[in-house]
Amino acid sequence: MTFPSSSSSTANIIGTGLIGGSLGLALRARGWRVTGRDHDVARAARALELGAIDAVGHDPGAEITFVATPAGAVAEEAVVALKSATHSGAVVTDVAGVKAPIVRAIDDPRFVGGHPMTGSEQEGIGGADATLFAGATWVLTPTESTDPAAYARLLAVVSSLGAEVVAMPAERHDELVAIVSHVPHLTAAALMTMAAEAGEEHATLLRLAAGGFRDMTRVAAGHPGIWPDICVENRVGITQTLDQLVDALARLRGLVATGDRRSILDVLERAREARVNLPARAPQPEDMVEIRIPVPDRPGVLAEVTTLLGELGTNIFDLEIAHSVEGTGGVLLLAIAADQADLAGGALWARGYKPAIRQLG
Amino acid sequence: MTFPSSSSSTANIIGTGLIGGSLGLALRARGWRVTGRDHDVARAARALELGAIDAVGHDPGAEITFVATPAGAVAEEAVVALKSATHSGAVVTDVAGVKAPIVRAIDDPRFVGGHPMTGSEQEGIGGADATLFAGATWVLTPTESTDPAAYARLLAVVSSLGAEVVAMPAERHDELVAIVSHVPHLTAAALMTMAAEAGEEHATLLRLAAGGFRDMTRVAAGHPGIWPDICVENRVGITQTLDQLVDALARLRGLVATGDRRSILDVLERAREARVNLPARAPQPEDMVEIRIPVPDRPGVLAEVTTLLGELGTNIFDLEIAHSVEGTGGVLLLAIAADQADLAGGALWARGYKPAIRQLG
Repeated sequence: MTFPSSSSSTANIIGTGLIGGSLGLALRARGWRVTGRDHDVARAARALELGAIDAVGHDPGAEITFVATPAGAVAEEAVVALKSATHSGAVVTDVAGVKAPIVRAIDDPRFVGGHPMTGSEQEGIGGADATLFAGATWVLTPTESTDPAAYARLLAVVSSLGAEVVAMPAERHDELVAIVSHVPHLTAAALMTMAAEAGEEHATLLRLAAGGFRDMTRVAAGHPGIWPDICVENRVGITQTLDQLVDALARLRGLVATGDRRSILDVLERAREARVNLPARAPQPEDMVEIRIPVPDRPGVLAEVTTLLGELGTNIFDLEIAHSVEGTGGVLLLAIAADQADLAGGALWARGYKPAIRQLG
Repeated sequence: MTFPSSSSSTANIIGTGLIGGSLGLALRARGWRVTGRDHDVARAARALELGAIDAVGHDPGAEITFVATPAGAVAEEAVVALKSATHSGAVVTDVAGVKAPIVRAIDDPRFVGGHPMTGSEQEGIGGADATLFAGATWVLTPTESTDPAAYARLLAVVSSLGAEVVAMPAERHDELVAIVSHVPHLTAAALMTMAAEAGEEHATLLRLAAGGFRDMTRVAAGHPGIWPDICVENRVGITQTLDQLVDALARLRGLVATGDRRSILDVLERAREARVNLPARAPQPEDMVEIRIPVPDRPGVLAEVTTLLGELGTNIFDLEIAHSVEGTGGVLLLAIAADQADLAGGALWARGYKPAIRQLG
């Protein structure tokens, strides 16, 4: 498996805020030459000053371009970057927290949507940190038209920053983050506002706000700047999930109003079981296997295989495409944790693939 | 303020679970003789074995009786204890999370309702801890008929355990804990259940469930046994607050559906301001600052930061770990004396941290 030859690699970063700046620091620490720009020229200058970029501007010859603007600006910036790209293996990606509208708007095999599931209470280039992506889950959203070589290259770069990649369809990403991020965030804000509006008793109430309330409302302390875009771009996922939550709360209200102790206990016991089974974090495998999958050279195979493994919760640590010497087929090589090999292999068999598994290392 | 003469003090504990057992350990550590019972005789025997009580049974001559049963059983047990009490200065109190129905049911000047705002993911006597109440807020709900001497005596005992007492009417307590505890708990359960019900995509979803979601659903991991009673006893406060929350979520849904960025930002900014002003805990009398330190989520950071400050002779009055909304990093929040802020900040900078300091209070 080959990682990019760092000494000669070049990248663009469009939008030099917290994520863009952190990307610049992380790439430069690995020997990349990074060119960056921002619609706020002072922010780009600050990124240069802090060593997050080598130069202000845009390098059409760069191998990879990260669009790290707010969600609403990604599509336009990505299309411009794709049009101007001159490198034969150019890849363009983004880091926005909503994916479907962006992926739909950019129909180019060289674009792969991405979302590093990292964050910080810091805001802006001043909080940039080269280690921000270490251990983070980084979602990629390949489509049927995604160029497998572009995907493999992006996967290698993202993995080299210490992130763990999980692939899934853009629409599914948006549904899932509505459940685990967007609606929880809005709910925390609603709970915090209700407490604050308790008015003249506020001081007393805050004395009573013990650990559980503090935990639940902590995300509401984050900077709200990115949220209007996220809410607008993911309005379908968010409104659906809010409807589900309101329904669930209305059902609970009914149980409380009628004093249905048995059902209240059932609800809380189910929730407890689910929460207790929430893993502390993505497992770090000690043993890895390589799965070799002969694949036809047709559109969509990459997206199908990677998102299938994503659905199983299987992290793909590395991916390579070996083309046949003759003919149009090839072999997809994936590195995954050994303890997930049977699960992944079985799922691939069930979809008609013929995976072969061998121990790595 | 006079503290009880420990050498001769005697207490009853009715219900030797987590709170009752912790009370027994804390009182015995201060020289009290503690008699305890439980409707589950094995649990009382275990409390004796663990040193939480001196004897199994009930001492009619005890100065103070803590009823530490679930909320639904408090009134009956308290009335029995009051009837049998022979000590001239006897006080009876309880520790249930709902107060108004209990206080209404017990019309005796020697009874004072109480609620230590502490908790633990532990359950039962096995999780009992003599230090459980140190620094906790302990609500007392005196009424017009409460004997001031009984109240003063209870206040002294509770304070001697390290808790900070706040007094309020029982009805107000129930309204406030509906906002800061009961409804947040039910909401966490609803969010966790929705995530769990995402079904076959569960594994992927859990990969995306980073720090913010984990913080928000943590209370759902608690043992649900006490909640049916709490929901039934505080049904008025809980249903009112659930109605408010559903209204707030419906308003937010409307803003998302219509793409009203300005109003979404306003809501989140108000919530942020309220959350940022939520004190780490009851204010210390000294001039304090809060130091916020972004930290990677790796072992040893907490030890490194705390021992570094320890070496400087800086006392940490409070400490909290705020996980990122998404991702694996977080922010360490420390409350220290204002006059040590420069020293501590400089030392942290020298070790590569990026502390931010703000005045508290």
